[in-house]
Amino acid sequence: MPSIRILSETELRQAIPLDLAAVNCVAEGFAALGGGTVEMPPILSMGIRENNGEVDVKTAHITGAESFTIKMSPGFYDNPAIGLPTTNGIMVVFSAKTGQVEALLLDNGYLTEVRTAAAGAVAARALAREDAATACIVGAGMQARLQLKALCLVRPITSAVIWARDTAKAEAAAKELSADLGIPVTASSDLAGAVSGADVIVTTTPAAEPLIKADWLRPGQHVTAMGSDQHHKAELEPACLTLADLYVPDRQSQTALMGELRGAIEAGLVPPDRTFTELGDIVAGKAPGRTSPDQITIADLTGTGVQDTAIATFARQRADAAGIGTDFNS
Amino acid sequence: MPSIRILSETELRQAIPLDLAAVNCVAEGFAALGGGTVEMPPILSMGIRENNGEVDVKTAHITGAESFTIKMSPGFYDNPAIGLPTTNGIMVVFSAKTGQVEALLLDNGYLTEVRTAAAGAVAARALAREDAATACIVGAGMQARLQLKALCLVRPITSAVIWARDTAKAEAAAKELSADLGIPVTASSDLAGAVSGADVIVTTTPAAEPLIKADWLRPGQHVTAMGSDQHHKAELEPACLTLADLYVPDRQSQTALMGELRGAIEAGLVPPDRTFTELGDIVAGKAPGRTSPDQITIADLTGTGVQDTAIATFARQRADAAGIGTDFNS
Repeated sequence: MPSIRILSETELRQAIPLDLAAVNCVAEGFAALGGGTVEMPPILSMGIRENNGEVDVKTAHITGAESFTIKMSPGFYDNPAIGLPTTNGIMVVFSAKTGQVEALLLDNGYLTEVRTAAAGAVAARALAREDAATACIVGAGMQARLQLKALCLVRPITSAVIWARDTAKAEAAAKELSADLGIPVTASSDLAGAVSGADVIVTTTPAAEPLIKADWLRPGQHVTAMGSDQHHKAELEPACLTLADLYVPDRQSQTALMGELRGAIEAGLVPPDRTFTELGDIVAGKAPGRTSPDQITIADLTGTGVQDTAIATFARQRADAAGIGTDFNS
Repeated sequence: MPSIRILSETELRQAIPLDLAAVNCVAEGFAALGGGTVEMPPILSMGIRENNGEVDVKTAHITGAESFTIKMSPGFYDNPAIGLPTTNGIMVVFSAKTGQVEALLLDNGYLTEVRTAAAGAVAARALAREDAATACIVGAGMQARLQLKALCLVRPITSAVIWARDTAKAEAAAKELSADLGIPVTASSDLAGAVSGADVIVTTTPAAEPLIKADWLRPGQHVTAMGSDQHHKAELEPACLTLADLYVPDRQSQTALMGELRGAIEAGLVPPDRTFTELGDIVAGKAPGRTSPDQITIADLTGTGVQDTAIATFARQRADAAGIGTDFNS
């Protein structure tokens, strides 16, 4: 058997920062999805109920690619109480020619953070106004931070406001991001005002009840809702979807089950058989994104296997170029 | 992060032979499945069509167990032409308490071979006559060999006949197994005669058209069909299932899609809504297995995630006891 390259979280954090190259690699994955050259089976999901845990498995194969990736993402919600992160994860890279294991990316969920934030940038590039300058970030966790950083890679953001249920966390994130990004980032306790005043709104919470009201949205805004990835979560009031001129799921078969689309269907606002243009269709140039500065656009991101295959392929290329990792012979 | 134990194929082959302990560990997995204490999501399956490949992902969690396993099994059918095995695989063991990766079993499919053969023994122990002495093995590949070895662990087999499409391969397998098992094993080119004359028949082929005719079956026989694990495969003529006194799937939701049950439903011989006792129900003692020496019994095995979780847990225990493996710090 050929040797297997093992990359640790530390190595991957050094080699794969969230930068424009990472955004572009995820964009290429979406373009392949939109171009119809991706095989992407439904997500495998299993609960470990007695320990308040779950695990998701995602994969995708881009036709003609030399490798594909299977990602396993456990989420154990009692972990913080014992000082461990909620999410973990590992990606396994296989040869698409022979099925042999080529690499193990022991990233503990880091690459998922990067590709999730990168998808936010892909959505903003496709849907937000080109001159979008102000951002509202809802939530103050790791994705809140990364989504703002990703947004700044693709739009000329000059200031941002952060709202979180816990004001102290919003203030801490705002302070950190101000320093990191060199723009004024402030915390706000007025969610309605923060949303109404921003060109781009990104929601990053695990909310089970919608936080964002349709009344708060203004012409010209773009909203990326990336927090809901399970059937019990929702961040946007269902009426937001009908108010929007353009609603764009990352994958409609997923958002109908576990994204914002679910609530809109359940509320009877969207017929279950209505088909929406997906983000990949726009990135592939098969469908237009925003067509006027006054439109309200919404991207509904639940996370797709093609993002994992894209970021893993990118990580391997960077690691090979940098000569990092450990070879293991089985 | 805690360190991750990595076990190579070589180490796993040494530590986990196909023995009665392996059979019993897989039986315990089936008992948990029958006892209703297993969470086992549907198999994730993806084709890599341009390379005549596919990959399956299976998992299961036994309530209360300290770990669960996710298995990835690629099958690339053009590999033999370039001197590589068709199947590969890796198992990842996660803590069921925290979701952290505990071990990587780089078995290249070896543990799947063992747990698949062990399931054959579990089926024979539940369904074959206790005095079953003669075996017919259909096929001459690795599973043909392992299924006969597994059968000999649980029934007093004194002779066996092997049939394969390629007679030379049947003869080679028969010679090898005679030496290994110390019983007469012969090759036959008369499939009907070989089937009719055996107490236990095990089919292990990738046949797309049924090989075994219902007319050939005799009272008292047990048949384990373990070759079909995809929607285009079948080894038994559908009438075999209605002739049998007891048809036992490993998991009916799987055999209805990709086992022998599929053909019987398609032929209109079995109503799609009929519910069968599963192997786990019998192993758990919730339902009887064979109740008389004259019954014809059929086990339909497609492979379940609980077998993978069971064998991986067993492998880790044996490896820990033997002090083998390599620790990797991420």
